[in-house]
Amino acid sequence: MGRTVKAVELPVLAPLDRGAGQLGRQLALQLRAAIRKGAMRPGEALPSTRVLATALGVARGTVVEAFEQLVAEGFLEARSGAGTVVSSALADTAKRPGRSAPAAPTTKTSRAASTPLPPLRPLPAPALRYAAITQAMQPVPNVPFAVSVPLGATAPDDTWRKIGNRVRASRSGAPSGYSDPQGLRALRVAIAEYARRARSVRCDADQIIITAGTQQGLHLACQVLLETQDQAWVEDPAYLGITSILAANGPPERVARIPVDDEGMRVEEGLRKAPDARVAFVTPSHQYPLGMPMSMARREALLQWARARNAWIVEDDYDSEMRYAGHPFPALQGLDSQRVIYLGTFSKILFPSLRLGYLIAPPDLVPAFCGARILMDRLAPTAEQHVLAAFIAEGHLDRHIRRVRSAYAESRSFLIALLEKHLPARLATLQAGDQGMHLVLWLADRLRDVDVVRAAGAQGISARALSPTYAGGGADAPVRQGLILGFGGYPEADVTAAVLRLAAIIEQQAGRPDQACR
Amino acid sequence: MGRTVKAVELPVLAPLDRGAGQLGRQLALQLRAAIRKGAMRPGEALPSTRVLATALGVARGTVVEAFEQLVAEGFLEARSGAGTVVSSALADTAKRPGRSAPAAPTTKTSRAASTPLPPLRPLPAPALRYAAITQAMQPVPNVPFAVSVPLGATAPDDTWRKIGNRVRASRSGAPSGYSDPQGLRALRVAIAEYARRARSVRCDADQIIITAGTQQGLHLACQVLLETQDQAWVEDPAYLGITSILAANGPPERVARIPVDDEGMRVEEGLRKAPDARVAFVTPSHQYPLGMPMSMARREALLQWARARNAWIVEDDYDSEMRYAGHPFPALQGLDSQRVIYLGTFSKILFPSLRLGYLIAPPDLVPAFCGARILMDRLAPTAEQHVLAAFIAEGHLDRHIRRVRSAYAESRSFLIALLEKHLPARLATLQAGDQGMHLVLWLADRLRDVDVVRAAGAQGISARALSPTYAGGGADAPVRQGLILGFGGYPEADVTAAVLRLAAIIEQQAGRPDQACR
Repeated sequence: MGRTVKAVELPVLAPLDRGAGQLGRQLALQLRAAIRKGAMRPGEALPSTRVLATALGVARGTVVEAFEQLVAEGFLEARSGAGTVVSSALADTAKRPGRSAPAAPTTKTSRAASTPLPPLRPLPAPALRYAAITQAMQPVPNVPFAVSVPLGATAPDDTWRKIGNRVRASRSGAPSGYSDPQGLRALRVAIAEYARRARSVRCDADQIIITAGTQQGLHLACQVLLETQDQAWVEDPAYLGITSILAANGPPERVARIPVDDEGMRVEEGLRKAPDARVAFVTPSHQYPLGMPMSMARREALLQWARARNAWIVEDDYDSEMRYAGHPFPALQGLDSQRVIYLGTFSKILFPSLRLGYLIAPPDLVPAFCGARILMDRLAPTAEQHVLAAFIAEGHLDRHIRRVRSAYAESRSFLIALLEKHLPARLATLQAGDQGMHLVLWLADRLRDVDVVRAAGAQGISARALSPTYAGGGADAPVRQGLILGFGGYPEADVTAAVLRLAAIIEQQAGRPDQACR
Repeated sequence: MGRTVKAVELPVLAPLDRGAGQLGRQLALQLRAAIRKGAMRPGEALPSTRVLATALGVARGTVVEAFEQLVAEGFLEARSGAGTVVSSALADTAKRPGRSAPAAPTTKTSRAASTPLPPLRPLPAPALRYAAITQAMQPVPNVPFAVSVPLGATAPDDTWRKIGNRVRASRSGAPSGYSDPQGLRALRVAIAEYARRARSVRCDADQIIITAGTQQGLHLACQVLLETQDQAWVEDPAYLGITSILAANGPPERVARIPVDDEGMRVEEGLRKAPDARVAFVTPSHQYPLGMPMSMARREALLQWARARNAWIVEDDYDSEMRYAGHPFPALQGLDSQRVIYLGTFSKILFPSLRLGYLIAPPDLVPAFCGARILMDRLAPTAEQHVLAAFIAEGHLDRHIRRVRSAYAESRSFLIALLEKHLPARLATLQAGDQGMHLVLWLADRLRDVDVVRAAGAQGISARALSPTYAGGGADAPVRQGLILGFGGYPEADVTAAVLRLAAIIEQQAGRPDQACR
């Protein structure tokens, strides 16, 4: 067999694309594909590099490079005296799929390369649970009444960007290596001072772990404080972000849902249902989603349980900066800094796409939270930490909060007035609270909030349904229908239009026979 | 009792600080503290707001504000006809710490306010595990031989910062609300194109989830693919970042450590030890920490196992861009995009403090990974995603990689020459590989790598010990002593000084009687 003929016979050798360059790489690609498809069999000899180079009209070095690459990868073997052959190890692989796996189908090596297997494989059980979470917690479009959208008067002004440019041009904000998983010290110092001043939180910078926001703080707390089988108290209703973490990572009975009333979590129900729980997750400043603060008596009862039972309290303080009457409630953490893990965030008061928040832990738990953070994602991006530290230290955060609070107060009053005017009282009842960035609109029982939300979404209105935040457990905490409506930052014309459309949707759904019959 | 006298009798009323402002808040603070300390008892009446305002020399509104705040918090009660009293609910709380908790100590309400409990409480078991991880995975200082420190020629040039300033000034990079947990589409499109071109990864943008780097990708994969009791194959030795996640979240027997040899993971050992494992975690391009690629035969055997057993392969491709001879190895994912979850990162090729990477999943697993990401931290910060998308799309990433690769090649040769010259052959053997950002320096058996690392750290040298990356399981994968030395970016004078000091430390430790006796 003439050498040139042999090279040409190789089915893989489509013409190389000289314009694309990297001829050696192109050649390696073709040879690899041919071996994988079975067009070249284990043990089969390749032409010499010189002959192949001539046949292809390329430099011999190009072919040598391709061969060496495929030898290194295990596709080819260099046999002394016999030139280069397709690796015989590939034949072994194809023949025995694994000693301990006799039931394995004898999938041909060539198969998987281009044909995905038929979809007969079941997905792992956790994958199914997580896929359901994606469905339930998908972000809504940034139109009325999405919560916490930095728009107009609720967005940071240009100071944020300018400080960012300045900080990034300095050495401190420049690209860097791995650093403290707890977060930038300057930022922690600024946060400790802010939390003390604004929230009566008692801590120093060494107790703070910078997070990517409240959600990460909740996740870290679940990891550090709970074994898979440990029980936790969770408010009923509650934020889906906490109930979903617990549901995804353990048996359903680990979650003890505790009803809330006008004073917040009914602690005595927790003591009755699950006295040995390890952790209580609460939103004492502003119950999510209903909006009332936890009373002092309940706070004390909760703390006493935690002390007596060696349990912890995770205080999710997601939006207490936005208060429109009286002072902000002091944090529960200030009553017992040894028992409470405090979660704060800049997602609400600055903007969600920043992804920076903080967790304040009792000193003995700090190393554990650091370890959990390292395993989760190592540390927060550092440039933005430098920017935020400067923003706080230079007084811009306080100014921003004052400005945004007044903007929110205005849009809140505007929305309340519109809802009171346009929503029929027999179908919808407002519960506005006096803090936060959303209000609750209770719906009449014959309406289904998820249907209203779906219909609203189809008309370009974002709202969240209340009913999925309830456990649906029984008579002491019946599921109620309602909407969570954010009131920040949108142009008044957009809000007006959205309220009118929402009113029409509610009227229409209340009047639909299939709804009324339910 | 005269009213003025009564007000003065209140032990809490230290003079208000008029210079500090917020008098109502100061008053509320003092009253709250007094009630918590027990200085004012449940049921006790307060003076009227008018009397108290006069006594304190403040506006009556100031006192009203403080009282209203404390009523809202549950400290005070407004009794019709009886004025304002300390809430009687507080007495109930103090008397009965919880119906179902008879064993609870009768901690006085006043106690927790200022005195932390004695440290008799045990920490949760997971907390102890995570604290140990903090110890083992603490970042090392950014001096030779820390891996992946963007310094000098290995740092991004000013283009990165300038694009950042430009993008942030545009609408797209400005502060925004919650958005797609999968990540910015423009960035995913850019990554899909890059991964296809550079790594032979087969995917489209819809299969990509933007992560905070490889560590988060590993964490997500563990959550989505594994139940607590499911087994996983992990290389021996392996990256502590994966072994620690598995150890922190399940029983030890869930991890099947599979020894590696010159061709990478010994798949036949996996089939023998744990044929029913659900996932194999591998570093096929560049085994971590040892540096060799996985051979083609092993890749095929691994894929066959996964197909036969409905298992998944997680391919951690952390630094394959840095190759100094031949092409980069094509990704395992390119051989079977249905079975492989591919993890890439920009921490190594750009800089670690960026915290952006990507996970490429088979299409049927994408919703699950999104859900796990939402629960972990919702989404990656968006401004940097816009910056990176522009950086890639405008060709800067390719230029940066070319530049950095040549800088790394230079510093690698420089370090190898120094080590060969100064390290005594009887004590240390170099294994340089031909890719990556670190090399391995094997130590003689009588040395202990963790001692060498500790001594080096004390002299301002960063190194990682190899022995902790081994499972220490038995004769087929004995623990070996060695150092992981990063070679990027440091000034040559610093590297020279560090090598000389390291050589002296190794000589000294080898000669120490207590070491030689071990």
